[in-house]
Amino acid sequence: MKEIETLWEDVRQLSLGNGGEIERLELPPTPLRFLRDFVSQNKPCIISNATLHWPALSLWPDPSYLSEALSDAPPVSVHLTPNGRADALEPLPSGSLCFVSAHVERMPFPQALRLVSDSNLGFVTYLQQQNDCFRSEYSALSSDCDPHIDWATEALGCLPEAVNLWIGNDRSETSFHKDHYENLYAVVSGEKHFLLLPPTDVHRLYIRNYPTGHYSYSHETGEFRLELDKPSRYVPWCSVNPYPSPESKEQEMSRFPLYFNGNKPFHCTVKAGETLYLPSMWFHHVKQSPDDEGHTIAINYWYDMQFDIKYAYFNFLQSIRYHSAVAEPEREESVRDSSAGDKPVSKQLKTGKMIDCNLLAHVNG
Amino acid sequence: MKEIETLWEDVRQLSLGNGGEIERLELPPTPLRFLRDFVSQNKPCIISNATLHWPALSLWPDPSYLSEALSDAPPVSVHLTPNGRADALEPLPSGSLCFVSAHVERMPFPQALRLVSDSNLGFVTYLQQQNDCFRSEYSALSSDCDPHIDWATEALGCLPEAVNLWIGNDRSETSFHKDHYENLYAVVSGEKHFLLLPPTDVHRLYIRNYPTGHYSYSHETGEFRLELDKPSRYVPWCSVNPYPSPESKEQEMSRFPLYFNGNKPFHCTVKAGETLYLPSMWFHHVKQSPDDEGHTIAINYWYDMQFDIKYAYFNFLQSIRYHSAVAEPEREESVRDSSAGDKPVSKQLKTGKMIDCNLLAHVNG
Repeated sequence: MKEIETLWEDVRQLSLGNGGEIERLELPPTPLRFLRDFVSQNKPCIISNATLHWPALSLWPDPSYLSEALSDAPPVSVHLTPNGRADALEPLPSGSLCFVSAHVERMPFPQALRLVSDSNLGFVTYLQQQNDCFRSEYSALSSDCDPHIDWATEALGCLPEAVNLWIGNDRSETSFHKDHYENLYAVVSGEKHFLLLPPTDVHRLYIRNYPTGHYSYSHETGEFRLELDKPSRYVPWCSVNPYPSPESKEQEMSRFPLYFNGNKPFHCTVKAGETLYLPSMWFHHVKQSPDDEGHTIAINYWYDMQFDIKYAYFNFLQSIRYHSAVAEPEREESVRDSSAGDKPVSKQLKTGKMIDCNLLAHVNG
Repeated sequence: MKEIETLWEDVRQLSLGNGGEIERLELPPTPLRFLRDFVSQNKPCIISNATLHWPALSLWPDPSYLSEALSDAPPVSVHLTPNGRADALEPLPSGSLCFVSAHVERMPFPQALRLVSDSNLGFVTYLQQQNDCFRSEYSALSSDCDPHIDWATEALGCLPEAVNLWIGNDRSETSFHKDHYENLYAVVSGEKHFLLLPPTDVHRLYIRNYPTGHYSYSHETGEFRLELDKPSRYVPWCSVNPYPSPESKEQEMSRFPLYFNGNKPFHCTVKAGETLYLPSMWFHHVKQSPDDEGHTIAINYWYDMQFDIKYAYFNFLQSIRYHSAVAEPEREESVRDSSAGDKPVSKQLKTGKMIDCNLLAHVNG
């Protein structure tokens, strides 16, 4: 179906530009310009100098400031994994893949922060919880940055539905996924490296249903076990790992040719003090570089998206079978359990319509 | 391909509402609201009280005012047809259909205006010329209304590319088509009756290539001849006439079942003093009711549209074959001249990309 490939090219040529660069703004846009040139067009941009007035920019790179500010706060949620990959696909002992969540613990913030920057541990620590954690667990830091991005709030006509804090290190990465939100992602310390693909590239990511599982960490043995969730559950997830290991690279490239042989994703680095507008439904993969203290700190604002004609077009496109659904039938078969619901979870939209969407698409920023 | 039918439903349920009513605003929206709730979502609305301050609303219903104001103006362009249908499909003597343009003459405005309201003539007169005529031929009226719609200009970030005046009567109608513009359509006197279909319904209109022709009117014989253009040229046009005659109704319904058996178009009447926001790429059919003097007067503002992800999605959808291209092969064959270019005209977009689009899609408002 060459029409889909024409669509991939059209979106790049008409709207995104062929340079492969995300547009950069030296100053925050007016609400009207942000809405007209970016949100309405579902087009990302990076904004400099939008958060210069935040005390966080100078205060948070100092771990002692953060530990002091949160010394009396209730325990925070900490995600532990053996390799930094959570909410990602990992092989089960059988060799088939499973969508695995981190082992989550709660501990005092100062202890959690030390774990993040300690590279001598047998696990990777990521302080993240996409449940509006900045306004709950981290409320002691609320005066260090704005409760919302004012020009985005005015443009979008609503306050953020969730504000999340992320403190990690260079071993943590986030696998390709999309969110049903307009996302303003402000880096406070260190750098975030994004790979971005427009929603129109959905088939290039080979979204398939995977069984869900989770890591279970034993402090006694210092070991992780990967366990399938019971009762079994399936979620649709992107199959592509954009950074395969040298040993698996050839195999991955032959499994996912639409990704590896096609247009490169937009790549951008968002530095401390910069803000990425990540439009709703864009696929993104995230890696990070730490500051001198071994931390990457960011805060993101999720605003409600419009479920409009663009969203209807996306669902239409995704509903068309093209390559990905048949590229690897054996493996698909091996992870499919006909007794389990392998339909995506349903979510009641504000419009009152039941549509299929993946609640787990919200677990990563 | 049931996915396309799902798309038709999704757009109605998610974005447009199922009531089949166009949203009405009692006051002009702020630029931000107009952009967020309508332009970005490609969603029409009718705005009351947006043009109350125009002198035109009280002055133009009086034909003597208009004739006086334009008594010294250069001749204006007048479209003459035998039946009120120009830029529409008409049968050739062979029975096959042709896209026919009106006979165009230039005459002094006062004479032209009398022809519009004279129902005893053997032809139908329509003062319309979609070439920015309000700012050229009708510049003597410029102080009677705003040169642009201020809140739309601010929202869209540009001045209108064209402003057109329309003076017709109840015998003129405009066949289904779309424009590559954001359209603000302000009725000054009489009423306009629109049928509207979203761009996602493109297959329901059975767009096909038709040879172009034009009416030639002889003042001596008082007769119209329909002549094919030389050299021959083809344009893609909507095949559906939403108001077929009682004799042809059954045949039309069986030819175009996706239109006649599917969701009804949105129907709205725009009265004097009201303004329709007609989003880019929406299909529209227009009829009109006259004021007491036998005139329907309107002015429309065409603003540049964004050729963004929505436009790329539309082109993708349109490129998928579904029913319409094969529903009536014999007749298609009969109007196709293999020696002629039956490709749509190409237009150089601002993006620098050559894309197929129909320049003639601009001939009607």
